[in-house]
Amino acid sequence: MSQASTHPIQARLRELGIELPVPAVPAAAFLPFVRSGDLVFLSGHIAKRDGRPWVGQLGRDTATDEGAAAARSVAIDLLGTLQVAAGGLEHVARIVKLTILVNSTPVFTEHHLVANGCSELLIQVLGERGAHARSAFGTAQLPMGTCVEIEMVAQLA
Amino acid sequence: MSQASTHPIQARLRELGIELPVPAVPAAAFLPFVRSGDLVFLSGHIAKRDGRPWVGQLGRDTATDEGAAAARSVAIDLLGTLQVAAGGLEHVARIVKLTILVNSTPVFTEHHLVANGCSELLIQVLGERGAHARSAFGTAQLPMGTCVEIEMVAQLA
Amino acid sequence: MSQASTHPIQARLRELGIELPVPAVPAAAFLPFVRSGDLVFLSGHIAKRDGRPWVGQLGRDTATDEGAAAARSVAIDLLGTLQVAAGGLEHVARIVKLTILVNSTPVFTEHHLVANGCSELLIQVLGERGAHARSAFGTAQLPMGTCVEIEMVAQLA
Repeated sequence: MSQASTHPIQARLRELGIELPVPAVPAAAFLPFVRSGDLVFLSGHIAKRDGRPWVGQLGRDTATDEGAAAARSVAIDLLGTLQVAAGGLEHVARIVKLTILVNSTPVFTEHHLVANGCSELLIQVLGERGAHARSAFGTAQLPMGTCVEIEMVAQLA
Repeated sequence: MSQASTHPIQARLRELGIELPVPAVPAAAFLPFVRSGDLVFLSGHIAKRDGRPWVGQLGRDTATDEGAAAARSVAIDLLGTLQVAAGGLEHVARIVKLTILVNSTPVFTEHHLVANGCSELLIQVLGERGAHARSAFGTAQLPMGTCVEIEMVAQLA
Repeated sequence: MSQASTHPIQARLRELGIELPVPAVPAAAFLPFVRSGDLVFLSGHIAKRDGRPWVGQLGRDTATDEGAAAARSVAIDLLGTLQVAAGGLEHVARIVKLTILVNSTPVFTEHHLVANGCSELLIQVLGERGAHARSAFGTAQLPMGTCVEIEMVAQLA
């Protein structure tokens, strides 16, 4: 077993049964992340299920619990991208800021509870370095009808 | 009277009759602010009235003037958080960027006027250092039904 | 012909038939951009046509193609502001991050295709330095009813 795989972060991922995905290179006119100095800006990652957009709208056909599960799945994808951006999660100094976009009707008001699905996973995996500032709000829609999209700013060591 | 209380920023706050709040520690999975280098990222602060969410939606039950008043109240809360983040507002080099989220129906188009309630207060209190870049737009909803949420990036001296 | 006008970026702009606008100074309580260290944060720029807000909502009265054209026009305005912020586009190290706000109904799900109108123009003009991280999503409305608003973070050399 390599040194990298015994790092506490890797151990926590194993305990949680999480295998980080290799980020897909977007077939689009943008990059999954851009580094600038110590900061790395990650593109908005949309929620996926079985590799396809996790479609739904909170307040219409998607409950808060499902939204939080979708947000947790986005956190895993973000960690996969961050691992590549940082050359290993052990080089992440801290998560700085999340913007959590919740596809919601005008009657849904629990965006913060959806957002916790992402926030809590980051803290479980990264500990204190996972604690972050954030904003969460309701969008009229999201690309491909997905229920949650999250972008991240992180600081590298 | 201490030196700190005679700083021009403190004097302006007194003239405006503003007492900055001690920021509440969120009972949630995120932090009110994160510092990274010279930058500090403040979480989205929702508008409150009498300590509870300032509920409303522009274009439905909340007029532009009330939205601007709510945005001004968020500016005060942001300054309270920034004071703690910077160890005193005199250590703020400048406000860099605001994102002003306005809970609005599809017919409301005066988000910029709502946003001015925050922007103008920051300039009144901080002078040139309060001038900032910003974006303002309409969300489908906001956490707990509040009418305005604002996040900030500031640079510390 | 001056040296500046023979820079590859200027040549590409000429090939594309694009003349960058001199950014209007907003008659408002905010600035078109703020520089902080190597980063420059550009305010949200709304789409304009013939100098007036490019009004429309995707999914209601504005097709995806028109939204992409509006996003492309915002890219030109952003480059105009960035040219001033950087003292010439040749001093731009790279575009870091875009946030593309698409005024859309709850049924429109092609925000990413609208966003490409901006992303592709930036890469056409700036080459590799124009490649960026981004988020795109649907807002309930935008200031003055405009169909697209885009903000930018760029890194200066």
